[in-house]
This record gives sequence, C-alpha cells and structure tokens, in this order.
Amino acid sequence: MTHRIAVIAGDGIGTEVMPEGLRALEAAAKRFDIDLEYRHFEFGNCDYYLEHGQMLPDDWFDQLKDFDALFYGAVGWPEKVPDHISLWGSLLQFRRRFDQYINLRPCRLMPGIKSPLADRQSGDIDFYVVRENTEGEYSSIGGKMFEGTEREVVIQETVMTRTGIDRVLKYAFDLAQTRPRKKLTSATKSNGISITMPYWDERVEEMAKKYPEVSVDKFHIDILTANFVMHPDWFDVVVGSNLFGDILSDLGPACTGTIGVAPSANINPEGTFPSLFEPVHGSAPDIAGKGIANPIGQIWSAAMMLEHLGHQEAGTAIVDAIESVLAEGDAQTLTPDLRGQGSTESLGKAIAERI
Amino acid sequence: MTHRIAVIAGDGIGTEVMPEGLRALEAAAKRFDIDLEYRHFEFGNCDYYLEHGQMLPDDWFDQLKDFDALFYGAVGWPEKVPDHISLWGSLLQFRRRFDQYINLRPCRLMPGIKSPLADRQSGDIDFYVVRENTEGEYSSIGGKMFEGTEREVVIQETVMTRTGIDRVLKYAFDLAQTRPRKKLTSATKSNGISITMPYWDERVEEMAKKYPEVSVDKFHIDILTANFVMHPDWFDVVVGSNLFGDILSDLGPACTGTIGVAPSANINPEGTFPSLFEPVHGSAPDIAGKGIANPIGQIWSAAMMLEHLGHQEAGTAIVDAIESVLAEGDAQTLTPDLRGQGSTESLGKAIAERI
Ligand SMILES: CC(C)[C@H](C(=O)O)[C@@H](O)C(=O)O
Ligand SMILES: CC(C)[C@H](C(=O)O)[C@@H](O)C(=O)O
Repeated sequence: MTHRIAVIAGDGIGTEVMPEGLRALEAAAKRFDIDLEYRHFEFGNCDYYLEHGQMLPDDWFDQLKDFDALFYGAVGWPEKVPDHISLWGSLLQFRRRFDQYINLRPCRLMPGIKSPLADRQSGDIDFYVVRENTEGEYSSIGGKMFEGTEREVVIQETVMTRTGIDRVLKYAFDLAQTRPRKKLTSATKSNGISITMPYWDERVEEMAKKYPEVSVDKFHIDILTANFVMHPDWFDVVVGSNLFGDILSDLGPACTGTIGVAPSANINPEGTFPSLFEPVHGSAPDIAGKGIANPIGQIWSAAMMLEHLGHQEAGTAIVDAIESVLAEGDAQTLTPDLRGQGSTESLGKAIAERI
Repeated sequence: MTHRIAVIAGDGIGTEVMPEGLRALEAAAKRFDIDLEYRHFEFGNCDYYLEHGQMLPDDWFDQLKDFDALFYGAVGWPEKVPDHISLWGSLLQFRRRFDQYINLRPCRLMPGIKSPLADRQSGDIDFYVVRENTEGEYSSIGGKMFEGTEREVVIQETVMTRTGIDRVLKYAFDLAQTRPRKKLTSATKSNGISITMPYWDERVEEMAKKYPEVSVDKFHIDILTANFVMHPDWFDVVVGSNLFGDILSDLGPACTGTIGVAPSANINPEGTFPSLFEPVHGSAPDIAGKGIANPIGQIWSAAMMLEHLGHQEAGTAIVDAIESVLAEGDAQTLTPDLRGQGSTESLGKAIAERI
C-alpha cells in the first residue's frame, strides 16, 4: 500500500526544515519498508499570496483531499502578509475544511534539552495537550460598528457545539484511557466566561460518566497556566478549547524546553479527510535563510504522521533517533538553539543516520 | 482627611487573611499618621447567597459607591455556589459597575521565595501586568440554542470598544513611561482571532504614536506565555485584554513563585468610583479554617491601596516589611506554603511589627 503525502513547505524556515523532515521519513520508510509517495505544492505561503492575492488556489480542496496526509512546514511572514490573512487563508482552512478537529501535542522533557524549570529531570514531565481545532474562539463571525469613530465597537463570537465539544472530549478520554496514569485535566474558565465555559464543564461531566476508570479534574485557564509551571508533573492528558489548547500547547513545550522542537498533529480521526502534521514553531523570519533552524519539530512531526498512518514502530524509531542524538549532545551536530555550532542539515542528517 | 474603607472578607481563607491585612493597614496608618475608617460588610460571600439567593443586596451600589476604596478578601466556594454565579454576582459586578477598568498586578522575584524557574535571582524579574478589566471576553451576551439536543450550540460574544481599549492602553503606556526601561508588551492573538484582535493591534499602534519614548512589542498569547517562562526578564509592562490579562497575571506570579502572595488592584483611575484591592489567590476552600493561609497577598494589596489613596511611603513601608520578613526566613513565622511551621497570624503579626 502506498501512502500519498502532500508536502507544503510554507514560509521562512519551513522551507529549510522540510528537507530534513523528508530525509527522516525516507530513512524510516527504507528501514521499515513503507511505501511513501510525495507531491510538493508551491502554494500555502506568503509569496504565493503576493503573486495571486490568495494563499491557496481556488481548487485547493480538490487538489488535496485525496492525499493520505499533509506534511506542512510553517506559514506566515508578517512583513509580507498580515498573519490573520496568511493563517486564515491556509492552515486554518485546512484544519476546518478537512475537519481536523483534534490538535495533538506531546509535552515531554527530553534528554539533553535544558528546561527553564528548576529541578526537573527527563521523565518528570510527560503529557499530551489535546486541543479542539475547528470551532470555539477561532470564529469568523462578528464585525465592527461605528467604524472610525470614538464609539467604535468590535464583536467576535465564540461558537461551541455539542458535537464539537463531545468529539474532542471523546478523543481525549480515549487517549487518557490508554495511559498508565489514566488522568484527564480539563481547561476551563467558567468562573469568568459565563456561557460557553459552564457549557464546556457540563459536557466534560457528562463524558466522564462513560469513563469510570479515568480520573478527571479541571482548572481555570489562569491557574492552569500557573500549574504548568509549578506542577508540570500533575498532568497526563490535558484537554482544552481551541484558544486554551493553543496557549497550553505552546506553554507546555516551553516548560520542557522543547518549544523549538515540538511537533503537532492536526487529526481527522475518522480519516474522511487527510490529517496534517507540522512543527509547533512558526516560520521564524528572523533566522530564515541562515540554515540554522532546528529541524527536530519537523522530524518529530514526521514520526507522528507515520504513527497516524499505522506505522507505530517507524514513528518510535524516529523519536528514538531524535532522543539519541540529543542525549549524545555533539556540538558539531546540534543547531545554535541547542548550544551547538551545527546546521539544520547536520542535525537532520545525524538523526536520519540514526534511524 | 479620613479615608473610608469598605471591608468585604468574602469566602474561605478570605476571612482568615483579612484580619492580617487590616493589622498591616493599622500599623502603617499609625506610623504615617493616616486616618482610616472601616466598615465591614457581610455580603459578597457564598453563605450570603445561600441565605438570600443573591451575592449582594439590591442596594449594594449605593451602599458602597461613596467609599474611598474596597478592601476585598477572596470569593467563591464551588461546593456551595457555582463559581460563575458567585463571581459574576460579586467581584465582576464591582469591577464593571464601579468601572474599575484597570487590573494591575506586579510580578516580581522576592527575596526568600523560591521561583520554579531555574537560574533566576531576585531582581531579574520585575514587571507589571495591566489587564483590561470590564469588557472583552468576559461578556454577558450570548446564549444557547437547540438545548438538550445533539445540535446544541452555545455562543458568547467578545465585545471590545475603542473607549475600553484606548483607556487601558493609555494607563499602560503612562506606566511604562515612568519606568526605567520604558518598555511595553502587548498581548494579542491576531493570527487566530480575526476580528477583535487585529483591532486591538491597531489601537496599540495608534496609541504608540503618542509615546515615542516607549518601545513597544507584541506577542501572540500562546508564545507570550511561553516567553514568560523562557525570558521573564524581557518584560517591563505587559498589557492585555480581560482574558489574556487574567491568564498572564496568574502565570507571571507563578513564574516568580509568588502566586500565593501576589496582590492586585482593580482601579478606577478617575476616582469617580471606589477602586478595589484584593489578593490574586482565591478562597482556597481546601485549606480554609486551618489558620495556615498565607496573608501576604492581602497585606501587599493593602500596600497598593494606600498608594492609590496617595500614601506612597506607607505603601512602600508595607512592601519593605514583607520583603524583610521573607528575607529573614524564620520558619516559626512563615506559613507552610513558604516551608515554615507558622500560621496566618504569626506571619501577619511579624509583618505588622516590622512596619
Ligand atoms: C475569579 C475570577 C472570575 C477572576 C477573573 O477571572 O477575573 C480571577 O481569576 C481574577 O483574576 O481576579
Ligand atoms: C499560527 C496560529 C494561527 C496557530 C494557532 O493559533 O492555531 C498556531 O499558533 C498554532 O498553534 O498552530
């Protein structure tokens, strides 16, 4: 069986880390005898926008919908195109139209990576953030009134549906069920946001009844971010709305020192549409073109993609290779963000060899 | 001139830390010859709700509006009353009806307090979070449809006004102007939240033109929370919407290890209505009644109140007393959260004596 992968490098360092992501994929494919077929797309980046006035061609949906997965670099270059245009015109379209309603991000202390938290060892922190990825605070409903006057007012609606909430909760509870600690934490803000968030809490309570083995707690988002810093060891699976999940899945990797190397999966669990795999980091215009971007986020995303496609072992082999290169800590190999003198390519090659 | 203070202890440990807040106030009043008059109110807590079906009496506004300041403990006891009812029925009413549109919280590494961040010394972190406190994501507009069915949908509107944004920005820029580094950071999420947040950014750019000496940057809330952990030394004055400010002003104190001791001021800068001073921590039902709650948040809030009332020196004296007791680190005095064996009272008394 051939897996067809759509490759979209995007902007900035996206174009630099993508080749290393593909190198790792190739190495894993060879070792585990997996048949991968790639197609590269030149849209979904800001230069395309400058030329065409839109981030994607009109028929992007048809061009991409039959792939088995999308492998994305990073998108956005605010000096060329404002972020809300570039992101809404690409990544957020994919997530929504391909109904990738799960955004999954691991937060794990890795060997050889310095955490900004005091007194934490590799193994101490190991949890997942499961984020709702299609609705909630990221809505396109709302507008502006009394424009240009002192009375100007802007409104944006947060929209949550029972379907939308229940399916992400189900995914998170299922995931918690598979983990040794079987613990789920819900991010809420029902003490301040008085309509949507109490409803979120209600759905969590309802879903919890179906998972008697999973222990459930909840925190308001303000104190939850504080607890990520003070007690990261408390967490196992953390589930949140689109916005809260977004925040927690940057903060979590920051706490483990892995914001530059963390991966993410945008998943359509039913497989009706392709899922999308991308590093957590952005396109980093400030270091683009220098060949020093850390490719691990892209490579780790490749591992998540292979697991999603059914190749668990191959995914594990990639993660093991990453950990082994990090643990070794050879300064000639590692990129500057890891206090090395190596390049995107040297680090990518070292990992591919280890696979 | 007599300052009239309305005292509302609230729930849980609020009733335990309040006497220590008052003790510190009294000590400062005596030393600096300030005339304070207190009136205690029995409403604004969950027991009042259980008896009266509301958190506040109908005429609370008239009862409180002529005080010079409100001194609040903590409110909320979810087992008695759901948080969104108790908070919306009390604290959030005060903030909104008394137009306390600034929520100000210092984030500072204090001597003798262990920060969860690695390699940070007292002096390294010292910034303010300025939060919009009346509008934005904390709105009461929205509702539910298709109730009880699979199609159920809930909507909550975020409402921002030019007036509301500009006045909080003005306060934050003014504050930045008084600080040595003169630096302002704006919290946004204009890449994902596509109507209100680009508008927020626009207003920041507009306001920045009036403050050529202040250097301005902005971060999306997700990476901003990450930067609080990775680079807390970057920040001087951070300004955010109601929700973003809420998150950052818990996370900031968490990073400095002071979440249990941080104060906050809810300010109506024009003085049309009384401002409100309260600790950042909640009512902590789990430790209520044990006499071990840390009273520093309440005492530090008293300092902010005195400064607001024009007694800068008295405020400084209280903060100095807190720092000196913390630096001394006597285990018999300190509460258990500071790794001591003392009580709310022993710590409160030690600080009052030092004043
Ligand atoms: C209790 C809650 C409603 C409140 C808020 O979110 O404003 C609290 O977290 C705060 O920051 O004062
Ligand atoms: C770029 C931005 C729109 C996006 C988001 O907020 O979803 C990013 O932060 C992410 O988490 O993938």
